[in-house]
Amino acid sequence: MTEKLNIAVVGAGYWGPNLARNFRTSADWNLATICDLDIDRAQHVADQIGGAPVTSSLDEVLADPAVDAIAIATPARTHHPIVLAALEAGKHVMVEKPLADQRHRGEDMVALAAERGLVLMADHTYCYTPAVLKIRELVAAGELGDILFVDSVRINLGLIQPDVDVFWDLAPHDLSIIDFVLPGGLDTASVSAHGADPLRTGKACVGYLAMPLVGGAMAHIHVNWLSPTKIRQMVIGGTKRTLVWDDLNPQQRISVYDRGVDIASVTKSASAVARDANISYRLGDTWSPALPEREALGNVAAEFAAAIREDRPARTDGAAGLRVLSVLDAAQRSLAAGGAPAPLTLDIQPARSAA
Amino acid sequence: MTEKLNIAVVGAGYWGPNLARNFRTSADWNLATICDLDIDRAQHVADQIGGAPVTSSLDEVLADPAVDAIAIATPARTHHPIVLAALEAGKHVMVEKPLADQRHRGEDMVALAAERGLVLMADHTYCYTPAVLKIRELVAAGELGDILFVDSVRINLGLIQPDVDVFWDLAPHDLSIIDFVLPGGLDTASVSAHGADPLRTGKACVGYLAMPLVGGAMAHIHVNWLSPTKIRQMVIGGTKRTLVWDDLNPQQRISVYDRGVDIASVTKSASAVARDANISYRLGDTWSPALPEREALGNVAAEFAAAIREDRPARTDGAAGLRVLSVLDAAQRSLAAGGAPAPLTLDIQPARSAA
Amino acid sequence: MTEKLNIAVVGAGYWGPNLARNFRTSADWNLATICDLDIDRAQHVADQIGGAPVTSSLDEVLADPAVDAIAIATPARTHHPIVLAALEAGKHVMVEKPLADQRHRGEDMVALAAERGLVLMADHTYCYTPAVLKIRELVAAGELGDILFVDSVRINLGLIQPDVDVFWDLAPHDLSIIDFVLPGGLDTASVSAHGADPLRTGKACVGYLAMPLVGGAMAHIHVNWLSPTKIRQMVIGGTKRTLVWDDLNPQQRISVYDRGVDIASVTKSASAVARDANISYRLGDTWSPALPEREALGNVAAEFAAAIREDRPARTDGAAGLRVLSVLDAAQRSLAAGGAPAPLTLDIQPARSAA
Amino acid sequence: MTEKLNIAVVGAGYWGPNLARNFRTSADWNLATICDLDIDRAQHVADQIGGAPVTSSLDEVLADPAVDAIAIATPARTHHPIVLAALEAGKHVMVEKPLADQRHRGEDMVALAAERGLVLMADHTYCYTPAVLKIRELVAAGELGDILFVDSVRINLGLIQPDVDVFWDLAPHDLSIIDFVLPGGLDTASVSAHGADPLRTGKACVGYLAMPLVGGAMAHIHVNWLSPTKIRQMVIGGTKRTLVWDDLNPQQRISVYDRGVDIASVTKSASAVARDANISYRLGDTWSPALPEREALGNVAAEFAAAIREDRPARTDGAAGLRVLSVLDAAQRSLAAGGAPAPLTLDIQPARSAA
Repeated sequence: MTEKLNIAVVGAGYWGPNLARNFRTSADWNLATICDLDIDRAQHVADQIGGAPVTSSLDEVLADPAVDAIAIATPARTHHPIVLAALEAGKHVMVEKPLADQRHRGEDMVALAAERGLVLMADHTYCYTPAVLKIRELVAAGELGDILFVDSVRINLGLIQPDVDVFWDLAPHDLSIIDFVLPGGLDTASVSAHGADPLRTGKACVGYLAMPLVGGAMAHIHVNWLSPTKIRQMVIGGTKRTLVWDDLNPQQRISVYDRGVDIASVTKSASAVARDANISYRLGDTWSPALPEREALGNVAAEFAAAIREDRPARTDGAAGLRVLSVLDAAQRSLAAGGAPAPLTLDIQPARSAA
Repeated sequence: MTEKLNIAVVGAGYWGPNLARNFRTSADWNLATICDLDIDRAQHVADQIGGAPVTSSLDEVLADPAVDAIAIATPARTHHPIVLAALEAGKHVMVEKPLADQRHRGEDMVALAAERGLVLMADHTYCYTPAVLKIRELVAAGELGDILFVDSVRINLGLIQPDVDVFWDLAPHDLSIIDFVLPGGLDTASVSAHGADPLRTGKACVGYLAMPLVGGAMAHIHVNWLSPTKIRQMVIGGTKRTLVWDDLNPQQRISVYDRGVDIASVTKSASAVARDANISYRLGDTWSPALPEREALGNVAAEFAAAIREDRPARTDGAAGLRVLSVLDAAQRSLAAGGAPAPLTLDIQPARSAA
Repeated sequence: MTEKLNIAVVGAGYWGPNLARNFRTSADWNLATICDLDIDRAQHVADQIGGAPVTSSLDEVLADPAVDAIAIATPARTHHPIVLAALEAGKHVMVEKPLADQRHRGEDMVALAAERGLVLMADHTYCYTPAVLKIRELVAAGELGDILFVDSVRINLGLIQPDVDVFWDLAPHDLSIIDFVLPGGLDTASVSAHGADPLRTGKACVGYLAMPLVGGAMAHIHVNWLSPTKIRQMVIGGTKRTLVWDDLNPQQRISVYDRGVDIASVTKSASAVARDANISYRLGDTWSPALPEREALGNVAAEFAAAIREDRPARTDGAAGLRVLSVLDAAQRSLAAGGAPAPLTLDIQPARSAA
Repeated sequence: MTEKLNIAVVGAGYWGPNLARNFRTSADWNLATICDLDIDRAQHVADQIGGAPVTSSLDEVLADPAVDAIAIATPARTHHPIVLAALEAGKHVMVEKPLADQRHRGEDMVALAAERGLVLMADHTYCYTPAVLKIRELVAAGELGDILFVDSVRINLGLIQPDVDVFWDLAPHDLSIIDFVLPGGLDTASVSAHGADPLRTGKACVGYLAMPLVGGAMAHIHVNWLSPTKIRQMVIGGTKRTLVWDDLNPQQRISVYDRGVDIASVTKSASAVARDANISYRLGDTWSPALPEREALGNVAAEFAAAIREDRPARTDGAAGLRVLSVLDAAQRSLAAGGAPAPLTLDIQPARSAA
């Protein structure tokens, strides 16, 4: 058995306790400390999970040579200084979504991690659920064929956040999942964002994102804080099959429909663009794969340790976090422009290859 | 009992048989003839519904002084000449959605009907279903409060139409319903349309429409021919309650949720725009009204007769048809502009008030 | 093409119009006449389906040598005399469920049909739906393994029948389906019936039937006229897989679950009866076969013709009808005995083999 | 604030940890000790919940004068000696369902508690969920009218228990709930039990219980360990409304249907039993009450403390536990008799009135 790595969890608010609990029970990690400016909050989390050292001093944590890595669950606007300080101190870093509150700050982080040869991992938790891992596997195996569209809906009666709108609050989930499961990642050249703030809260509470994908495909996300019903559903349409992921149906989370449109023949027409299509329909069987019951954060902790030990980028690395951040940044620009498509560049490479 | 009015059904294709069957059994109407260029098709429909005169000559129909009205179920591109000819011949007209294939043609129709003092009715069938009539009633009674958002989804594995895209095929349903149930009708100043044609059929098969409404609200429509699952759902969020209409759940088509966000107090903040909101949540009961079982087309036929007899605009009059057409026209412009919002003017008044 | 057979439909009430419509459009049949004591009712049905001869005289129908077969949709208490008369007159007979209102009357019918070498078919319509045909096929192919239990629920707000209780009204559907899909047919040695008449209508409105099957398995049926929600669901558990048929879910009528209990090893224990079981669980995939859209009654009409032409018993022959009737008879005895199990003998052989 | 009561949790297996966690965080209780023959198991539970004293000696616990009450979560066959010893030692007792493994043992417990003037509470946890509390409230308020039928289904792929059959494992839930919500409690004079053991495990894995209620009503329970789908549903039909409780639908757990059968007039008929009914249908609205989110076990702990302090029977007292046990006992007799109805007497009064 390899020796355990030492990790400090920074931030004991909403998400920190989950991180602390998972690192504490991980076979890969020793939870070295829980750090929060509010030491009582840190202590409360430590008590909840059966005990752990606590501190209110980040400096102390970063100065401790025994600490190999830190996991950051503080508000997004504080990610930039904390991540940079941690990387400067030679620590591997895992950071809560979104990577940062502005794209250029995320770029700083990715660049510094690459320069120092350290792992920078985005905690895209959903990507480590059994459902999303299975979707990625099915897409990669070509079970769906070429992707035609991705439609994601994430709505419920949500807490209106004091500092972020519904796009920054909810869409990182959908964006990180789409980035994770599509063979080429989230590869769009523009984003159109439509938001509504009908309660005059000062920020969008209802939002839509449209993103053209390569080959004429389209990804679309609907996020909404004002819906009395809760929906967490993603449809991924392909040339061969279509997959529906309904995360709130534990008895049948994933359904793969062998139904769709077949284009039997293609005739070059004068317009050269349009197929003079000979279209028919397939109405085949539906199939729902069994999924293991595993907590995603356990997988996250294991992947972070593996990336460090194998000196490779994590599966959701800083570059993945930066792609999500870039779309959010473009969405913000589109919103400011009244919904006009905002162009963006996403040729973001993985942050770090093996030395 | 008032005397029956005489109607001719023009077009015996997909929708015509439904019109013919309903007018034949209506207490208000006598089905004078079924007219189709393909006389065999007209005869086949006549046989199916228990017999009716048939003809292949529209001129003959229009020249017949006994015919009071015509109902048109021909392809959209033929509406303009047929409707104008019918109005010129002094006939009241009901026309299949969409009103026409171009906005200015719809304007011609509305103008001529007004000039001649004739009823021009859009066959927005959904507006006459028990569910939509109930929604209109609830909204009008203020049960939902002010409208915050409307989100409509209409997706299934659909026939790819030879001449129209998914917007023109499916969105008229959603648009006409939204126009019908909102107190001020469908009142938007711009439309953003995002379409995808990933099968290279030459037309959008997946489409999204975003339409800002007055007061910061938003209407959004998702139409899709490529979905293996069928969804017909509209959510109407209000300040007081939120209504969900699931047309494929016959046991509970309409649910009214007394859940939502309450803004208790509003403080003028420096930004002057944003409320320094004191927000809380209501988690109240859900209520599902009983709905009668009635065929919508029977109601359509009755409304057409009533409008003629009472010399008033139909509830879904030419102006309503024109508003729907105007949004489709703007959507087409937005699509051509890569999704940039296309402005439109919708100050379309009812076509005809009582003489 | 073989010549069409001539059929008379007797009874123009609730079900007769469906029979008449299907025989009229069948490639196998010529609808010779619709017979009802109420000639106006017969004429009304004839008009609805596009015309057919009508008569109020059953004698006339039976005396007509051109008539090959009759289909009977009259009240159950009248089946016995009509079927016997028709068989005496040399006609093949299809009869509405239940076969008769008493077991011995059904036995008369089966015996006479056998004696005369005529086809006697029970109109167990559900057995000819695509879903039930698929279930039968899957069970026969061993996809479920040995059958462990069958649980059927058929409840909704139903019309309280003037002359029959909820068992005789609804359970024939479940019984005929179970008889059709189980490899050995409905093979039980006793029936326990529990009924409730809480509204004091004079007959059971809520009912349960428990029927032990061979090998320790169990079939159970719940029928209910007082349920505000409508459920039509049958679960067939097997040693290999379990099938759930939800007839009200058109998007996924049949689901086959590769989940269950595995008994890995069997140890002879002292008690000699019980396995000292080494039990584990399988949590495999779920699969939902595509089903064609076909009207069951079309299949019924085709099967009736085929049985006559091929001189063989129909798939749901008189013996099948008699098995269903025998269970209803036993249920009635159990009810009368306060729910005590009522024994019955079901060694009923197919009515007629090829000459 | 009143002083906290001291409780010992006995049994650290499946359910004990939940009890320990709830008593530890309760405002009413001080968790004095966790007792298990396996001291390591007790310690493990103590660690999980943030620490508590542990012991392997029940005698020591019972000898401790500081201990006011004990909560027992050991196997059912051990309840009798432990409960009696605890009562003899002057402790109030809460005991896991079922109260005991044989009716007469339960009677001993109830009698001794009454004699000693101690609270004996059955831990019928479901009765303290917000849903069941709401159902009880609605029934008591007459919202459903007179009860016509209760149909409960509790099926899933369950662990086949080594020592109990599916009736003893699952039906106590349904029985205790029915006993709790019906105005007169579970009042049946006979039980018919039908069980199947198709895997030859030596005990029933599929079971049905039919219990006639007063006034011609009926309660029925379906429990099943072999179902691949999980259902937890209870329908309570009344003369005025019908309630459906779907415990697996967190968005709409309870639905109250204002639908049913109306009997407008009653004519005395010759038979004197049957109403010559004038029946019609009501198709009214559906209503779903909002339910608070509260953990049932917290309510259980509070009720146990309140009963002790107020010197009154608990809402689910020993008598309630004994009624459930009596039905299980009768079910066992019915099973042994091949499903014949087994009579039982349920005139069990609350265990203890105020001294």
